[in-house]
Amino acid sequence: MTAIPRIVEVRQNILRRNDEAARALRERFREAGVFVVSLVSSPGSGKTAFLERALALLLKEGYRPAALVGDLATENDAVRLARSGAPAKQITTGTVCHLEAAMVAGAIEGWNLADLDFLFIENVGNLVCPASFDVGENLRVVLLSVTEGEDKPLKYPTIFNSADAAVVTKIDLAEAVEFDWGAAESSIAAVRPALPVLRVSSKTGAGMSGLIEFLKSCRAQSCPACPARAD
Amino acid sequence: MTAIPRIVEVRQNILRRNDEAARALRERFREAGVFVVSLVSSPGSGKTAFLERALALLLKEGYRPAALVGDLATENDAVRLARSGAPAKQITTGTVCHLEAAMVAGAIEGWNLADLDFLFIENVGNLVCPASFDVGENLRVVLLSVTEGEDKPLKYPTIFNSADAAVVTKIDLAEAVEFDWGAAESSIAAVRPALPVLRVSSKTGAGMSGLIEFLKSCRAQSCPACPARAD
Repeated sequence: MTAIPRIVEVRQNILRRNDEAARALRERFREAGVFVVSLVSSPGSGKTAFLERALALLLKEGYRPAALVGDLATENDAVRLARSGAPAKQITTGTVCHLEAAMVAGAIEGWNLADLDFLFIENVGNLVCPASFDVGENLRVVLLSVTEGEDKPLKYPTIFNSADAAVVTKIDLAEAVEFDWGAAESSIAAVRPALPVLRVSSKTGAGMSGLIEFLKSCRAQSCPACPARAD
Repeated sequence: MTAIPRIVEVRQNILRRNDEAARALRERFREAGVFVVSLVSSPGSGKTAFLERALALLLKEGYRPAALVGDLATENDAVRLARSGAPAKQITTGTVCHLEAAMVAGAIEGWNLADLDFLFIENVGNLVCPASFDVGENLRVVLLSVTEGEDKPLKYPTIFNSADAAVVTKIDLAEAVEFDWGAAESSIAAVRPALPVLRVSSKTGAGMSGLIEFLKSCRAQSCPACPARAD
């Protein structure tokens, strides 16, 4: 009755090809010395606002960051991010619910990767499908806003399990929504024990400098707990 | 390079089979006299909290509602909803990012549909994939919380375009997040002109009685603007 077995069969082929493309990408990133951070979350968790802050802080410290932003439609986010002065490009996916490695490879054509220290890849807002698609990142960060509820890691375990760090966003609203930090941390620990969890507010800037330090230490691989991926 | 053409080909077969199953379901619902409302939104937009309120209000007025709730994992939502006294059943989809008509058909096995006035189907939290899958509903409601931002309809046009009504949730937080009602309504109108837009807070109950009146009028087909679907 259901179409699931057929989906699984085709998905396996698609994922295998994607994994090959992602490995090739990761090798290019490694050779160029660019540290690649992907951001995954629900729509509206604050990925772009977070990136605006992160790009500005990294530029101020003399780093050379860039951003790719996935969305089904509109160039809005790339326009927003380009205001920081960092290179930013939109990947519009049409009806495709996630980014694939080949889309990232297409988007960076013409960019000299050796000119970059950090490349951020903001995935399509979706807590399901992006979990399965490697886009060649070194570090996958899952964002969870306090307004979404503490149970999301339990309901979307695969994406939390595939992430290397979690960032709780919009912490300025935590009190207004009666966010239960203990419940949220228990949910995360249940699906991914020992996942680093950071807390930020892109509105007030709270937590952002600590987050930048975390990214820098991952890039420098100087952090003993650094979860950065390597092939 | 990209796997998209292959996905499109397989998707077309899957969608055709799903459409057939959905039409059969809708006919069963019509014969039984149950009005079926599906809810789609991002994770954390407040579908379950909204349903808790709606089930309680409908029960209080003597209606017989029931709910099916889709999630990748956990039975949490069905447990929450069953506390209302209405029948509620979880559909756990594993890694599948949306509900399909066949899953709904499986979940209602053993239920006497003639005992119901309303059946709510809460889809997996996802603004992309559920857009393409008819689950036999009469009315598809897309929820958008004020904390997600006003631009979501522009970024996820397909799901707003496939909806019969939009509900803006968490309006008690609108001021705290500086929600721009004009921008939100323009975004919705840009992708789906004349879509009915309702505003609620499941926390305070604001707007809920109007929303129940809307659902009742759609069910009774007494509302001239009623967008309810029929085959």
